[in-house]
Amino acid sequence: MESTLKHQFEQLKRLQTDLYGRDFLLTWQHCQAEIQAALSIAEILKKLHASGKSFRMFDTGLAVSIFRDQSTRTRLSFASAVNALGLGLSEFDESKSQIAHGETVRETANMISFMTEVIGIRDDIFLGQGHAYMKEVGAAVEEGFNEGVLHRRPSVINLQCDKDHPTQTLADLLHLKNHFGSLENLQGKKIAMTWAYSPSYGKPLSVHQGIIGLLTRFGMDVTLAYPEGYHLLPEVIDLAKQNAAASGGQFNVIHDMQEAFHDAVAVYPKSWASFEVMQRRTDLLHKEDQLGLEDLEKECLSENAKHRDWECNESNMGITANGDALYLHCLPADITNVSCSSGEVSRAVFNKHRLNTYLQASNKPFIIAALVLLTRVQNAIDKLEAISDS
Amino acid sequence: MESTLKHQFEQLKRLQTDLYGRDFLLTWQHCQAEIQAALSIAEILKKLHASGKSFRMFDTGLAVSIFRDQSTRTRLSFASAVNALGLGLSEFDESKSQIAHGETVRETANMISFMTEVIGIRDDIFLGQGHAYMKEVGAAVEEGFNEGVLHRRPSVINLQCDKDHPTQTLADLLHLKNHFGSLENLQGKKIAMTWAYSPSYGKPLSVHQGIIGLLTRFGMDVTLAYPEGYHLLPEVIDLAKQNAAASGGQFNVIHDMQEAFHDAVAVYPKSWASFEVMQRRTDLLHKEDQLGLEDLEKECLSENAKHRDWECNESNMGITANGDALYLHCLPADITNVSCSSGEVSRAVFNKHRLNTYLQASNKPFIIAALVLLTRVQNAIDKLEAISDS
Amino acid sequence: MESTLKHQFEQLKRLQTDLYGRDFLLTWQHCQAEIQAALSIAEILKKLHASGKSFRMFDTGLAVSIFRDQSTRTRLSFASAVNALGLGLSEFDESKSQIAHGETVRETANMISFMTEVIGIRDDIFLGQGHAYMKEVGAAVEEGFNEGVLHRRPSVINLQCDKDHPTQTLADLLHLKNHFGSLENLQGKKIAMTWAYSPSYGKPLSVHQGIIGLLTRFGMDVTLAYPEGYHLLPEVIDLAKQNAAASGGQFNVIHDMQEAFHDAVAVYPKSWASFEVMQRRTDLLHKEDQLGLEDLEKECLSENAKHRDWECNESNMGITANGDALYLHCLPADITNVSCSSGEVSRAVFNKHRLNTYLQASNKPFIIAALVLLTRVQNAIDKLEAISDS
Repeated sequence: MESTLKHQFEQLKRLQTDLYGRDFLLTWQHCQAEIQAALSIAEILKKLHASGKSFRMFDTGLAVSIFRDQSTRTRLSFASAVNALGLGLSEFDESKSQIAHGETVRETANMISFMTEVIGIRDDIFLGQGHAYMKEVGAAVEEGFNEGVLHRRPSVINLQCDKDHPTQTLADLLHLKNHFGSLENLQGKKIAMTWAYSPSYGKPLSVHQGIIGLLTRFGMDVTLAYPEGYHLLPEVIDLAKQNAAASGGQFNVIHDMQEAFHDAVAVYPKSWASFEVMQRRTDLLHKEDQLGLEDLEKECLSENAKHRDWECNESNMGITANGDALYLHCLPADITNVSCSSGEVSRAVFNKHRLNTYLQASNKPFIIAALVLLTRVQNAIDKLEAISDS
Repeated sequence: MESTLKHQFEQLKRLQTDLYGRDFLLTWQHCQAEIQAALSIAEILKKLHASGKSFRMFDTGLAVSIFRDQSTRTRLSFASAVNALGLGLSEFDESKSQIAHGETVRETANMISFMTEVIGIRDDIFLGQGHAYMKEVGAAVEEGFNEGVLHRRPSVINLQCDKDHPTQTLADLLHLKNHFGSLENLQGKKIAMTWAYSPSYGKPLSVHQGIIGLLTRFGMDVTLAYPEGYHLLPEVIDLAKQNAAASGGQFNVIHDMQEAFHDAVAVYPKSWASFEVMQRRTDLLHKEDQLGLEDLEKECLSENAKHRDWECNESNMGITANGDALYLHCLPADITNVSCSSGEVSRAVFNKHRLNTYLQASNKPFIIAALVLLTRVQNAIDKLEAISDS
Repeated sequence: MESTLKHQFEQLKRLQTDLYGRDFLLTWQHCQAEIQAALSIAEILKKLHASGKSFRMFDTGLAVSIFRDQSTRTRLSFASAVNALGLGLSEFDESKSQIAHGETVRETANMISFMTEVIGIRDDIFLGQGHAYMKEVGAAVEEGFNEGVLHRRPSVINLQCDKDHPTQTLADLLHLKNHFGSLENLQGKKIAMTWAYSPSYGKPLSVHQGIIGLLTRFGMDVTLAYPEGYHLLPEVIDLAKQNAAASGGQFNVIHDMQEAFHDAVAVYPKSWASFEVMQRRTDLLHKEDQLGLEDLEKECLSENAKHRDWECNESNMGITANGDALYLHCLPADITNVSCSSGEVSRAVFNKHRLNTYLQASNKPFIIAALVLLTRVQNAIDKLEAISDS
């Protein structure tokens, strides 16, 4: 084994983690060591994949995914990750199931878990519900396992909820780690997580919340910027403040994109709707109030339109540190004159950083594989080391 | 190997079965030894799965499923079972195929079978057609194999048709076997298979027919109870009578839920529509007569409404044997004040037995795996024994 | 190893091919040796499958399919082929993705490829676009690989585009090879690729174009026959002429079905719409001009109706060589008095050749597996030989 990899395994083994048999729902429910272990294993898996070495850990077994919203990247990332570990994928399509026939979440969770190792869930549309649903699924399979219904207790992995999007933000953090050399190097560095104009509305809050909830733990100077009114969930704002205080970092909320970009080494400009709007939208969706939804959309788009100047472009990129900040986006971005007439980012800036955003995205399947491995495979690190040595 | 498992293998090897290369469509087409072998192998697979031992039998190969109706449990059970045996799953979605372009069943059956080991089919909506369709698929792949089109002749497994639902009823039988200690212990025990009120109509007959067609073979005292007019298929009623006569059991048809529950050791209260209604519904569906279907629904719901008292509740559970009958349901149940205001079972009764119904359901993936193993793997029992020994 | 198989491997090793790491989009982009290698490997894989020997080559890895049109045969063939080689299948459903959110082809191609070995695409509806799309996907993953986004560069396999349908036509060519004994035996033999009447319109041109573009390379006397006006793409017509000149074969375009059938040893009667119609249809589809599409359909069906006599029946089969030409069809066929009142082929002719068309279709999964193997597996032939020897 090459010496840097050997060193990586040594560090990894020193981390005190307790992920085996557990769910992974919100990054802030997991200690620093667990976050670091996830990143480190993802890096090792990337190296193994690049060198053509299989890290299959299961002979058989099922991974079930439940997507309550559209997905390209995360869907394929989950499919890739579980396949690489040897699990078969069953994409559970609720429209083809009997959920309408009065099946409860508790019941369905057990029914899909008899031979299942992991359940990946995306549920990001309804504010106040996605995370609650994932917890309910976790509690249900916990009960099923305790009561002898299930031979094994599958782990629930959050593939985006109303609060957090951990597989995205861990992929982002790994990207930052690679770009700046180490997690330690992130200390004191300024990142601007900003709202940006989009001609659509109702984009989830989970990435933004996940980013401020995660990066504040690594001593970064996290500046959250948005036009007045576009609030994120207060509980996550509080969390970010506490994290910053504990990590020796900073967390500031401002309402000026230029100020946020000023001297930032990384920028993450991406649209969202305020949690109040998402709450109204959730209520209207439940009432199936189509007219109400149309009115809300009009109101929000008209509000958005006041902030067309919140675009990431060469001008404001110029005021970042050395005029050369790392541009981050979870993709797809609303690119001015590409996917819309006016959007989150100018064509020139996006094109300059395009391949880098692909690299950012490329971490996700390996992050997911790392989470499945840590939550499902006993002695995962020893097994990985044996494969690396072979 | 532990001695009970050793004993189980010895018994299993004494059974005279002939399932290899055949289809599994209706339990009554298979001898007692084959039914027992399916249960016994399912039990062994459960033990192997619980102990984390893989019983993969295929390196590659496809399982194709065709669901012409919604499904949660059976879909996931089939996915789990074929994955555990090493087969890849292809869910054949007829809406994405060229079946509308005049493809015949005979042709499609061959086109999906070139590298396929097993075809699982759910086709329970149209009376007089589901079983016929499965036979047609079986005959088509038989011809394809005989004529050199197919290298192997895939087995067709009934995942619910208009006549029977064998993977459900075998799971139910295994549940009864476990609960009462052995198949022999079922002799003389009273089970009430009863209609129950539901606020919906048009539920398939296959579970009820499958239960009376199967349990009467094990000497049980099977009481079928339903309000006047809710007839099951006469051919299955006749079969149940013959089975009971041959097995030393009983089969009675009555129209009183209380009488059915009286002294029963197990109850299976579940709604259905009469076969005459299902026939009218089938005709209307073929004519795409939406108004006719709405009229039929109104008529049936109004008929159902006369029998709201056919609910399984603490009162009638109290008159079962020792007031403590085993409650069976294939799920999802219509639970009063949970999934509807008035349904098949009261909340209190369902909650008491909820986890037990999950256990009942947990047999299904292993039953399906047992059927695939018996129909597709030569020397399956020897191979299983070797795995158990390892 | 049996001596004919030994001989086959010897011949195979002498072929100068360069498919590893490349795409397979149009047969005419590949040299004769590559075509022969694909056929030869498909034959070997068929033998291995028939004898129950696994030719799995991958431990894990993903195959992604993108179907922009309905499919039965090709969908299942691709699923079978990649499963047999050990890859997991992810059917990428664009309607469940975020492509509508302004994702570009370039971006999506990379996002689905992080752990992907092969991408199979069907895109045959829009004239001038299917092949272009496949090239774009290929270029995108090429860039992703070169820039370090992808560890491996997946191969793109054409599962039918607007120009060619190579997995179909190679399956057809293998069928002809088996029927006539060898590729050499095809020299000078007459095949009639003809239009035939269908009560529907807008059928793709890819099979016909693919057939004349491929069979003219093997010295066949290829006669293309259609009613005046039903033009194929001029570029493919030119290609067929050049091929015929180079191979010592013939290529004739005529407008008389009888003349085409006269003395032909094989006939391939199948409906299509002219490329001009397909171009108008493409434009209307893009404009979502439903009325325009209905008008075009009426116009085309009325034109079609003038040529109901272009039916393959016992009368015109009687004038083929020895009255016994091989009947070819990619299925499903429009069969008179079976799937329509008047169609491409009479019931009697189809029934006589039905099982033979199934055999023709049975080549496809093995052709696809051969293409994946040649484009994705290093030293594929040595590995196959080792399996054959085992």
